[in-house]
Amino acid sequence: MNKIESLRQWLRKNNLVAYIFPSTDPHCGEYVPDHWKTREWISGFNGSAGTAVVTLDDAALWTDSRYWLAAEEQTAGTGFTVIRCRRNVPTGQELAEWIKEKSKASLYGEPLRVGIDGWVNTTNSVRELQRELSLVGLQLTITYDPAEELWTDRPSIPLNPIEIQPIEFAGEDTKHKIERVREVLRKLHASATLITQLDDIAWLTNLRGTDVHCCPLFVAYMTVTYDDVTLYTDLRKVSPEVERYLSEQNITLRDYTDTAQGISDLPALGMVADPDTCNARLWPEGKGVIEHASLIAPMKAIKNEAEIRGYRSAMHKDGVALVKFLHWLKSGKWEMENGEWKMNGEVLTEMGIDHKLTSLRAEQPLYRDISFDTIAGYGAHGAIVHYEATPETDIPLEPHGLLLLDSGAQYQDGTTDITRTIALGPLTEEERTDYTLVLKGHIRLAMAKFPSGSSGTQLDVLARYAMWQQGLNFLHGTGHGVGSYLNVHEGPHQIRMNYMPAPLVAGMTVTNEPGIYKAGKHGCRTENTQLITHYCDGEFGEFLQFEPLTLCPIDTAPIRLDMMLPDEIEWLNLYHQHVYDELAPLLTDEEREWLREATRPLL
Amino acid sequence: MNKIESLRQWLRKNNLVAYIFPSTDPHCGEYVPDHWKTREWISGFNGSAGTAVVTLDDAALWTDSRYWLAAEEQTAGTGFTVIRCRRNVPTGQELAEWIKEKSKASLYGEPLRVGIDGWVNTTNSVRELQRELSLVGLQLTITYDPAEELWTDRPSIPLNPIEIQPIEFAGEDTKHKIERVREVLRKLHASATLITQLDDIAWLTNLRGTDVHCCPLFVAYMTVTYDDVTLYTDLRKVSPEVERYLSEQNITLRDYTDTAQGISDLPALGMVADPDTCNARLWPEGKGVIEHASLIAPMKAIKNEAEIRGYRSAMHKDGVALVKFLHWLKSGKWEMENGEWKMNGEVLTEMGIDHKLTSLRAEQPLYRDISFDTIAGYGAHGAIVHYEATPETDIPLEPHGLLLLDSGAQYQDGTTDITRTIALGPLTEEERTDYTLVLKGHIRLAMAKFPSGSSGTQLDVLARYAMWQQGLNFLHGTGHGVGSYLNVHEGPHQIRMNYMPAPLVAGMTVTNEPGIYKAGKHGCRTENTQLITHYCDGEFGEFLQFEPLTLCPIDTAPIRLDMMLPDEIEWLNLYHQHVYDELAPLLTDEEREWLREATRPLL
Repeated sequence: MNKIESLRQWLRKNNLVAYIFPSTDPHCGEYVPDHWKTREWISGFNGSAGTAVVTLDDAALWTDSRYWLAAEEQTAGTGFTVIRCRRNVPTGQELAEWIKEKSKASLYGEPLRVGIDGWVNTTNSVRELQRELSLVGLQLTITYDPAEELWTDRPSIPLNPIEIQPIEFAGEDTKHKIERVREVLRKLHASATLITQLDDIAWLTNLRGTDVHCCPLFVAYMTVTYDDVTLYTDLRKVSPEVERYLSEQNITLRDYTDTAQGISDLPALGMVADPDTCNARLWPEGKGVIEHASLIAPMKAIKNEAEIRGYRSAMHKDGVALVKFLHWLKSGKWEMENGEWKMNGEVLTEMGIDHKLTSLRAEQPLYRDISFDTIAGYGAHGAIVHYEATPETDIPLEPHGLLLLDSGAQYQDGTTDITRTIALGPLTEEERTDYTLVLKGHIRLAMAKFPSGSSGTQLDVLARYAMWQQGLNFLHGTGHGVGSYLNVHEGPHQIRMNYMPAPLVAGMTVTNEPGIYKAGKHGCRTENTQLITHYCDGEFGEFLQFEPLTLCPIDTAPIRLDMMLPDEIEWLNLYHQHVYDELAPLLTDEEREWLREATRPLL
Repeated sequence: MNKIESLRQWLRKNNLVAYIFPSTDPHCGEYVPDHWKTREWISGFNGSAGTAVVTLDDAALWTDSRYWLAAEEQTAGTGFTVIRCRRNVPTGQELAEWIKEKSKASLYGEPLRVGIDGWVNTTNSVRELQRELSLVGLQLTITYDPAEELWTDRPSIPLNPIEIQPIEFAGEDTKHKIERVREVLRKLHASATLITQLDDIAWLTNLRGTDVHCCPLFVAYMTVTYDDVTLYTDLRKVSPEVERYLSEQNITLRDYTDTAQGISDLPALGMVADPDTCNARLWPEGKGVIEHASLIAPMKAIKNEAEIRGYRSAMHKDGVALVKFLHWLKSGKWEMENGEWKMNGEVLTEMGIDHKLTSLRAEQPLYRDISFDTIAGYGAHGAIVHYEATPETDIPLEPHGLLLLDSGAQYQDGTTDITRTIALGPLTEEERTDYTLVLKGHIRLAMAKFPSGSSGTQLDVLARYAMWQQGLNFLHGTGHGVGSYLNVHEGPHQIRMNYMPAPLVAGMTVTNEPGIYKAGKHGCRTENTQLITHYCDGEFGEFLQFEPLTLCPIDTAPIRLDMMLPDEIEWLNLYHQHVYDELAPLLTDEEREWLREATRPLL
């Protein structure tokens, strides 16, 4: 019997008419450990965003435009219908309407029951589903995870060992961080906080792990009260050294499976928790919950001196790897053989680009991992915003057109995130125009000075101004925080079109990554990771500025000089001078010579 | 017995310990008819923003920095203490704390009673006061207006006649507008709306009045249901012609004093009302209120073809008056006589500037009034953002430095709002730099193209970018809507630093008015009124642009060319060419020659 039929049997046994599988895990991170990929298990679809629903007779998968084609291929023959969704996830209303139709629910009589696993759905998503299902005669039921019983070869929750992040990189000890959390609790008249996001826990404990793809995290929960801090994690992950360390930091260690009991045992009333990220099973109902976004995120976002030193060191290493890579790519000899382009005698594909760059990074000291799956999109693939080359999609590069390369690394002293769009040879006028519009946007934002506390929403237009003049736009955010040997995407601040009130303050990292994507043609994006620093003080308070942390030349070949304003050219020349000055001492003579050319002033 | 002592006697009789007088009137407009200036009556302070509180033994007046000095002068000897407020109005908490201290209120025992007139306080401000007073042992009591009894020579509510705004200017008849309101009611599942703002009523009825300083409004309330529209106004204001017109539009006419009864008689449940602008006495409690911002404002904000035609006509007239004025001012012969500068043989003061410009406007067809009190600030007075020259403050102009001139007119076919900063002779380097920074901001915003539906908050930085690079800023908004022979300040959209979600859409007017103010030195502001128009359609939907409606040269004498980018110079040259082309045929030879010089291309 296949798994969908087994699930339906299980549904009947449990008096359910449907089951909903989201993409999320109990910690609501961006990457999900294999153990919790139940949506992929049931549907076969492995994209990062999608919601599967199985009813007694039907099955459907919602996913957004990035994945429409892949989802149809991957679910072919499984009985799943792919429903094309405009957002990452369907709304509760969309799910409720579909289940109602398929299950013939009615507002008369007993409501039909729809199951979900409360551990992998956020509290707010459960509230929304409850409301929407009840409006159409359905009742949400939080059950145990059916995959526990039906998924026979299910991967276990990761058991990788936990490591201590040395204080020379972390810059602030855990005891001190915890005192700062308690100060915030006092201000909120709260008595405790529940911490469920893994990067918050890693930052607060100065511990790291390898449980999550590309992120140095370990699976755990945490509670902080005025007289206790408890870390809930699988005890098999904890070495005697880490156990000793935790004890020195006055952190109580308990097993991961004890979390719910531990929270329930707390005498605390006034527990801070975030319904947008806390899963519904752990939601501390009855603890006088104070609903509030993560207390840790705004602290973690502001980097201390050691962390900033770490970024600079990581960026030097990353810069060296990138220059070696660009020198190799830009100096390659192209020849056509039997109708196939080869560079230095070999076919070079997108996956080859990823492999080459990752190998060069891996040679650098303190390298641990990539910080996200490399996006190496050649030609029309560059227009697919979240493209990841796979053996099925991989294509050979040719000595013309644009390669969009978005990549990053985890070094123990810092996390990097950079995008360069690289001319492999002759370009079309449209490619050059789009590249220049993106660069103008990048520079206009990079040059901005702004009052401390401005929101990213206020600054966002600077990256779009030039392309808006041509009726062009990009539909992703312009900037996000970058962790310190932590997640490459970090909040609470963002630079984007829709309103994000979190203020920009000195010490935050934030990317600057405008792009233009022309389906079937090409994509351009230019991204630096920036540090927000003090600019000046005056009558209007403190003004801030962006300092680019990323050290890597921006390809000047595609630039249309006639479109560039004098101050934009000046910024680029100064940035290139800075890149050269910082990296030149770390390169071979040949690489240095190449870099000198690549960073030569325009005009 | 003076009025404060009379009031205290009245307080004792009514068992009250304090009375609060706000600046607002029953219709929450920007200008208050004299009848409702009770705060000015009791305190003597005549500024536009301030809150007076009288207790049994004390009296205080809160006002913002614009008015600190004036308030102290005007209240001298009255027993009022001026409290320097950081915002326009004190918070409920500030008032509650002060009254508590002065009245020795306590949380134990019967709460002491604080009075307000519910007619002149908004519903939300009353809610806030209720909450804050109750926290300190005080109880808010909505009483009758004590001024009714105590203010012996109180001006009456205006009785000026109501006029019909001809359809050639209004562009859409009232019946049709009312049908559009009903469509919105249907969408909101509402059955009625209460309209309390005078410009909403004037727009919806296509009627105008002269009850409010600078605004062509008449005092009234209105309700719209699916089968009835009622206008409540003093029947003495309604001529037989207007009565016939209202009857043709199926609008029931009732007396102003019947409003509360009329609302209470409505069978309607689901009445839309705005607690931020509806006064507390009229708040339709028990009518199943749907709290919602004005339904009229978003309709009124989008101008129809007739209204746009009207703006263009009004701007031509305003432009002619402004060019005549500038020609006169810029061609004046200055001579020093007995230590006094004279222009063309006479001392010229700020009030003289206002008089001259207003006279020139008054010669234009369809001129009705100025649209707000002229701000003519010479030298250091230019740095006072809401400066109004009075006989006490008026100063003579001299042939050097900057004159900031912010003015506008009401023509029957359109309302204007323009600021120019004019060099009267030699300038300091700082004046030229600040002027150029403001101009760069004005132009950067004026050139912007943007997706339809963008918020003003997204675009605001464009007007500030150049000055932010120097650590400078201005603390007022960058842009507001302008009415069509209506209020010079109109919502719901705005361009400003703090978040304003109302989307910018085609057909809206919006000003563009960055400034820099250096206390004790000078002020610069450059303002055009702009129309939002279609720019292009494409993959990302409709893009919009700003078309400057204002026709008047921008003084080029103060510009520091070395700070201007090529695209900024190009914009200015094109704008000046446009001003010249539009106005030249309407001028005398001499004026035309002057305008040709004033609009000569830079570079």
